[in-house]
Amino acid sequence: MRIKKAVITAAARGVRLYPVADTIQKSMLPVVDVDGLHKPVIQIIAEEAFSSGIEELCIVCAPGDGERYLAAFHSLRDNLLKSYQGIDWAKQEAEKIDHLLSRTQFAEQQEPRGYGQAVYCAKEFVNGEPFLLLLGDYLYVSDVPRQRCAAQLLALAAQEECAVSAVNPTIEHQVSRYGTVTGKHVAGQVGIYQIDKIIEKPSLSLAELELQTPGLRAGYYLCFFGMHVLTPSIFTILETQVAQGSTNILLTPALQELATSDKYLALEVRGSRYDLSRKQGLLRAQLALGLAGEAHDETLTTLVELLAEANARKPQQS
Amino acid sequence: MRIKKAVITAAARGVRLYPVADTIQKSMLPVVDVDGLHKPVIQIIAEEAFSSGIEELCIVCAPGDGERYLAAFHSLRDNLLKSYQGIDWAKQEAEKIDHLLSRTQFAEQQEPRGYGQAVYCAKEFVNGEPFLLLLGDYLYVSDVPRQRCAAQLLALAAQEECAVSAVNPTIEHQVSRYGTVTGKHVAGQVGIYQIDKIIEKPSLSLAELELQTPGLRAGYYLCFFGMHVLTPSIFTILETQVAQGSTNILLTPALQELATSDKYLALEVRGSRYDLSRKQGLLRAQLALGLAGEAHDETLTTLVELLAEANARKPQQS
Repeated sequence: MRIKKAVITAAARGVRLYPVADTIQKSMLPVVDVDGLHKPVIQIIAEEAFSSGIEELCIVCAPGDGERYLAAFHSLRDNLLKSYQGIDWAKQEAEKIDHLLSRTQFAEQQEPRGYGQAVYCAKEFVNGEPFLLLLGDYLYVSDVPRQRCAAQLLALAAQEECAVSAVNPTIEHQVSRYGTVTGKHVAGQVGIYQIDKIIEKPSLSLAELELQTPGLRAGYYLCFFGMHVLTPSIFTILETQVAQGSTNILLTPALQELATSDKYLALEVRGSRYDLSRKQGLLRAQLALGLAGEAHDETLTTLVELLAEANARKPQQS
Repeated sequence: MRIKKAVITAAARGVRLYPVADTIQKSMLPVVDVDGLHKPVIQIIAEEAFSSGIEELCIVCAPGDGERYLAAFHSLRDNLLKSYQGIDWAKQEAEKIDHLLSRTQFAEQQEPRGYGQAVYCAKEFVNGEPFLLLLGDYLYVSDVPRQRCAAQLLALAAQEECAVSAVNPTIEHQVSRYGTVTGKHVAGQVGIYQIDKIIEKPSLSLAELELQTPGLRAGYYLCFFGMHVLTPSIFTILETQVAQGSTNILLTPALQELATSDKYLALEVRGSRYDLSRKQGLLRAQLALGLAGEAHDETLTTLVELLAEANARKPQQS
């Protein structure tokens, strides 16, 4: 099974933690990627998909944002070529943008009707194939040299020819933030489970009752890491609620249904996720990518210098 | 002498270190300020001026940017009030934007004709008064509790009733980046000099020859820190070149002329400057502000956690 398509959901309206002037600004914030180049956040997410074998991308966004993204990326690319003529990194960055644009389309979520309905907006693009699903809020750094998080997930999905969701062991007091799953550990495999049960943002007591996974460290549960490979049957499952006109269609119950009808695994992806919608999210992501890539030494130097400066500012202990 | 007016020059065209989609994007990048609130960079600079006693602000920008800034700030404010109804910090942030907008006007630099000509664009706004000049590329963190860098400068200028430029001792291999000054140390005062000579971006050998300042640590020179209090005679000095239609009118030679005709001091401001146009500039500024303010503990925790994560990722030494 070859997975060639990816969907990034970036349709959330309203203001996240930092004030943004318009709905695409958060996705267009510049971050230094592991290759040392500055890119908009959404480009980094897209490139994680492309470098893992994806060939076509659909970004689900708010109405009008498709145009805004195109305009912003074109402007970026033109600026790069114009202002940095002959400079290698600028040419590289411009080429990466061209690569992105030639493989990307946009699907607009007309009304905010829930995350499940946002995913459903990509149905036509997906057109009956398996696909990688990513969130526009998350950046990832893999623990595996030369194999990004998305690549780890795609490899298992292709090998097992089924849906796979990335999960990571999460400490109990945080499970109420995430879709939480439990399942049977697949014998002979490390970190792979056959999914049994999924509950969206469970209370701790509910998790203790229903979602304990044998073999995990005490007080830890498997929570969604934010990336999934799904089979197109997810759209059939979502269809019912969409047709009913529900206004808050979640993905998680649809995934639970997928678990009952199809082969559906969970994989403990080896890496870290950085949630841009959380406090200090952008800063953490920037530091993590900085320390993980080309700019490692520079980033470390920056940290040391700034800690020293901040320390010198403090009143001296007498 | 009361200084009530400030000018921020943010008119540089072209792309700095990170690709920006349009000319205001860099100034509108969100950074967490020392009060813990996210704000666009240019708002942080404006608030440094306001909190130091400034009442009116003029932002010199590229053509069309005045409109773009207004639209962006209005959108920000509306988004805050709409999406965070009843939440205190959002209301605070919206009020700070209102405060900024009610005191700010824009002057457009029609053609890029040099930094001196950008300053000249503020002549009408300044209208014959002394004024504080700041650059849109620099953020500052003061070493003096409860007295920001701009406040230190304004205090001396008001007291001495003359132009004062902020300077800081800079290691010799960096002097070719900055306007570099030398002068006579004012007896009985710490870090205050009567300016003799100013050279823009001197080579090291030229600095060694012409710009040694007695009393400074060996190998160090006084370089512009990026903020000045200037008297309106600067416009008279700049007038000649402007009228001649020169295409690259620098500020530094005009400041040199100011030094020969008027009382003009240099002050070693106690604090650090963060240059957003340099490599890792935004990251450094964010960390410095984070460590210096409300978010100190959180920022420190972030640094420690990310360093630990990055370290765990490295291949183990056998």
